[in-house]
Amino acid sequence: MLKVYLSGEIHTDWRERIIDGAQGLEVEFDAPVTDHAASDDCGVAILGSEPDKFWHDHKGAKLNAICTRRGIEEADVVIVRFGEKYKQWNAAFDAGYAAALGKSLIVLHGAEHQHALKEVDAAALAVAETPEQAVALLRYVLTGDLPDAG
Amino acid sequence: MLKVYLSGEIHTDWRERIIDGAQGLEVEFDAPVTDHAASDDCGVAILGSEPDKFWHDHKGAKLNAICTRRGIEEADVVIVRFGEKYKQWNAAFDAGYAAALGKSLIVLHGAEHQHALKEVDAAALAVAETPEQAVALLRYVLTGDLPDAG
Amino acid sequence: MLKVYLSGEIHTDWRERIIDGAQGLEVEFDAPVTDHAASDDCGVAILGSEPDKFWHDHKGAKLNAICTRRGIEEADVVIVRFGEKYKQWNAAFDAGYAAALGKSLIVLHGAEHQHALKEVDAAALAVAETPEQAVALLRYVLTGDLPDAG
Amino acid sequence: MLKVYLSGEIHTDWRERIIDGAQGLEVEFDAPVTDHAASDDCGVAILGSEPDKFWHDHKGAKLNAICTRRGIEEADVVIVRFGEKYKQWNAAFDAGYAAALGKSLIVLHGAEHQHALKEVDAAALAVAETPEQAVALLRYVLTGDLPDAG
Amino acid sequence: MLKVYLSGEIHTDWRERIIDGAQGLEVEFDAPVTDHAASDDCGVAILGSEPDKFWHDHKGAKLNAICTRRGIEEADVVIVRFGEKYKQWNAAFDAGYAAALGKSLIVLHGAEHQHALKEVDAAALAVAETPEQAVALLRYVLTGDLPDAG
Amino acid sequence: MLKVYLSGEIHTDWRERIIDGAQGLEVEFDAPVTDHAASDDCGVAILGSEPDKFWHDHKGAKLNAICTRRGIEEADVVIVRFGEKYKQWNAAFDAGYAAALGKSLIVLHGAEHQHALKEVDAAALAVAETPEQAVALLRYVLTGDLPDAG
Amino acid sequence: MLKVYLSGEIHTDWRERIIDGAQGLEVEFDAPVTDHAASDDCGVAILGSEPDKFWHDHKGAKLNAICTRRGIEEADVVIVRFGEKYKQWNAAFDAGYAAALGKSLIVLHGAEHQHALKEVDAAALAVAETPEQAVALLRYVLTGDLPDAG
Amino acid sequence: MLKVYLSGEIHTDWRERIIDGAQGLEVEFDAPVTDHAASDDCGVAILGSEPDKFWHDHKGAKLNAICTRRGIEEADVVIVRFGEKYKQWNAAFDAGYAAALGKSLIVLHGAEHQHALKEVDAAALAVAETPEQAVALLRYVLTGDLPDAG
Repeated sequence: MLKVYLSGEIHTDWRERIIDGAQGLEVEFDAPVTDHAASDDCGVAILGSEPDKFWHDHKGAKLNAICTRRGIEEADVVIVRFGEKYKQWNAAFDAGYAAALGKSLIVLHGAEHQHALKEVDAAALAVAETPEQAVALLRYVLTGDLPDAG
Repeated sequence: MLKVYLSGEIHTDWRERIIDGAQGLEVEFDAPVTDHAASDDCGVAILGSEPDKFWHDHKGAKLNAICTRRGIEEADVVIVRFGEKYKQWNAAFDAGYAAALGKSLIVLHGAEHQHALKEVDAAALAVAETPEQAVALLRYVLTGDLPDAG
Repeated sequence: MLKVYLSGEIHTDWRERIIDGAQGLEVEFDAPVTDHAASDDCGVAILGSEPDKFWHDHKGAKLNAICTRRGIEEADVVIVRFGEKYKQWNAAFDAGYAAALGKSLIVLHGAEHQHALKEVDAAALAVAETPEQAVALLRYVLTGDLPDAG
Repeated sequence: MLKVYLSGEIHTDWRERIIDGAQGLEVEFDAPVTDHAASDDCGVAILGSEPDKFWHDHKGAKLNAICTRRGIEEADVVIVRFGEKYKQWNAAFDAGYAAALGKSLIVLHGAEHQHALKEVDAAALAVAETPEQAVALLRYVLTGDLPDAG
Repeated sequence: MLKVYLSGEIHTDWRERIIDGAQGLEVEFDAPVTDHAASDDCGVAILGSEPDKFWHDHKGAKLNAICTRRGIEEADVVIVRFGEKYKQWNAAFDAGYAAALGKSLIVLHGAEHQHALKEVDAAALAVAETPEQAVALLRYVLTGDLPDAG
Repeated sequence: MLKVYLSGEIHTDWRERIIDGAQGLEVEFDAPVTDHAASDDCGVAILGSEPDKFWHDHKGAKLNAICTRRGIEEADVVIVRFGEKYKQWNAAFDAGYAAALGKSLIVLHGAEHQHALKEVDAAALAVAETPEQAVALLRYVLTGDLPDAG
Repeated sequence: MLKVYLSGEIHTDWRERIIDGAQGLEVEFDAPVTDHAASDDCGVAILGSEPDKFWHDHKGAKLNAICTRRGIEEADVVIVRFGEKYKQWNAAFDAGYAAALGKSLIVLHGAEHQHALKEVDAAALAVAETPEQAVALLRYVLTGDLPDAG
Repeated sequence: MLKVYLSGEIHTDWRERIIDGAQGLEVEFDAPVTDHAASDDCGVAILGSEPDKFWHDHKGAKLNAICTRRGIEEADVVIVRFGEKYKQWNAAFDAGYAAALGKSLIVLHGAEHQHALKEVDAAALAVAETPEQAVALLRYVLTGDLPDAG
């Protein structure tokens, strides 16, 4: 069973496309909470409100870190996707965290981010653009099968 | 001797301000190559040119990783500064790398980045805005002295 | 399956409230022996009596350490509760042990202990007051669901 | 050179007595900031005030953690003293942190705390009452010399 | 499931007595090959004979090390028994190996070996004489139940 | 369940002979992709073609490293076979990788390679010539049974 | 001070060219014994002769492993050179050992070995052909200076 | 500077012979307290007498463990000598401790102990009989020089 953690962008359906594409493979996926509102407000919703936005965010980010750290630490492969918008510093943070733990890192991003992501890509074992390529990578790793050339 | 690695933004003089301010303290600073052009082109300059920009960047980023990894791994404290411009994914990557290794992390950024950096800040032992605050932190850690209240 | 170790106070039913509340979640709980008399006397009961109270205690504490270390080392999340009475140094010791191993730490205590526990809280990813909050934290970590606002 | 970290009680002169007694031995001592007021307020003094006492304490405790973690991680021997007053949960936390890292732990406390500290003592390589005994321990470890029997 | 490795003496039935006594407990036992002749000759039997007794022994000892290292590394608890006869240096070696890996160590030996085994006992969490005590220890660790006082 | 990774030569049926011979034993085998063409071209087949042969190879080798690292890191025993032909530097690389992680290493090779492989053999717990010997080793490790002398 | 271990080929003067070229840089070099005869015979010369060539080699290889392991474990950067002749499996073994420990790996070899070394190169942060390039890499890592373009 | 820890037998002058023989080499030696009486009584001499011989020994053994663990953990090479008399289980324990930490282990003993020490020898990188051989090993490791054949 290959454990794969899906980190990064939460505004497109890339996780679903990978999970769907990998059906039939011996893969177990994990991911952060991808409901943006829940992810932002979880800390104060459970532990009490904070008038200061910094601590509001802080409580939530720490709570989400329980999921994220466990997800990365237990993974064999960490896939981090950078989307087209936003700073996405948490995605790069996760990539650095995974790299320091010696995890196999796969990075997904469009060609427009190549230069800005060069340090992240340099720590990766594969750099791809599409979720379908990520599925093909997982299939090869687990079965040795390559996509049809045609 | 406290070993401090200064990661992140390379377009302002924040490193100089910290190093100057810390004079007289038992601190040893390390930093990446901050000459932007050298940092971008080091790979091909030494190892041979690449027609493809991706591999041009890749060679350079890997070479810079020799410095960066060593700097973080040998540090007691890693200070990461996020500036006002650019994606700065390498800064967030370094922060994640340092966090995974259990390094004491200090993050510097302006108030406008608080929400976007909440996951990075959540892993830090101090979040500050100015290089002078970072100096005061180092002074306190090493001597127990606090800034004059006046 | 999330592995959770429940350390600390043994004089109230907080463990039962968390375990009951977490029914249906993929959590596996572990805890020290909470029968106070057995916990105090286990060493001499099995390994032979000691006239000196220090060694009586020592034998028992070492035997209990077999449980405690394993519980913490295998846990994803360590929840430590500080009650209203007693020194509870073993609870703080467990928190430090868990922190050094990089475990996700959740601390439970009443508001009256905030100042005295500030170093322990500073190492935690969440600080809560009630067992019900701990259950809500576990539910969020595992399902992404937040408590109803109403 | 033996590196020794002196953790715990800050209201008596036990650190000075150990450092004085160990003169001439190849020992390098480290300790937390022991100025109670500075230690409590360091976070807000450098990083800005907080209206909420919890976050006031939190900022300070995290900043002090930079010193404490480094002190313990670099130490060969960690000596933790429990005094007569206060909760001293940070001392027990440090002892747990040191134990998890496999540091040689020496605990100092009066006989009245034996039962309450049994789990901490069980992780120690020596349990003593006085700073002078700690000095004798260090001298033996470094020179093989024992105190005069007379 | 508690994983227990049974190291040391191979000339009495102590392993069987522990395994029998622990029936019904969630314990998984592992042990070295205890057939003395097979253990001595395994290397040459599989890999080819050696005229020199040192290399004969060497081949066998290395092959047995595959079992022993794995047994200790995967164990939660390592029980090492020292019998009445022979040098049993391999038992002490296993105890040191287990101690360095931070395993919970239980040592079994008769009173006559107390002084000679003091360094090994000092690294143990329990020192017992009989296999039945070891069973009682495992039962307590797993269930919290103590032997009947009567 | 003993986890065994089969590294090295891909041009003979040694893996099949070990897997067949070990039927009935509690062993779980893992291996790299042994389809030579797929292994060479996997990178460009999934991630896009490269005009430069170096990067063509590089992409493939990194992708194969996802399998290899995981295989070695999860293994209890790593068996590396050196065949009669080719440089087989990846086999020696895997052996070094396994040795640094403290894995139990078994090396298979013909007598003609003894001198050239002396550093690799020196890190191994067993050096054998045939797959059948490897099977006998695994059988002994798991059952204590030796091959019939006849 | 950057610690660099120079592993691999012992039949050309590449080590001298790197050490000479790096004069003035803060580098400390280490290397295996490069006297071929001494390296081959050291085991029997010190520990006694062996009639069997395998054990003759074995004794020497283990003794050399004391140097090699220490050299790699203490290094920040490991440079491994593959020459034109011989199997050089020990060089690839060292590269794997260094990679598993997370060392920064630089590989030197001629273009004719690119395909055979692709797995080793894939683990490296730089792949170069000449000792002079290695010197330029070290200079850049330590000073940020690049070679003159002219 | 090579750090060498000299463990084991304390009744002959083997340590002095190694230290004398290694003069001029860049070696730093460490050793346990070798005054038998001080080593046995150190615990009670500093921490107070114990009527029970077991605890008398226990206090001393734990105190000596402060020296021993540090000595082994900081060493590059651990030399363990087994003499002709006594059980010397502490020597075998140290060897196991060193092996588990991946230290380079050199074992010294007479031919009469070969069979009984086969598991210890199997973990060693060199097995010698005399202190002079140990000196020759250290000289070779540090300088590449072999003893004169004559």
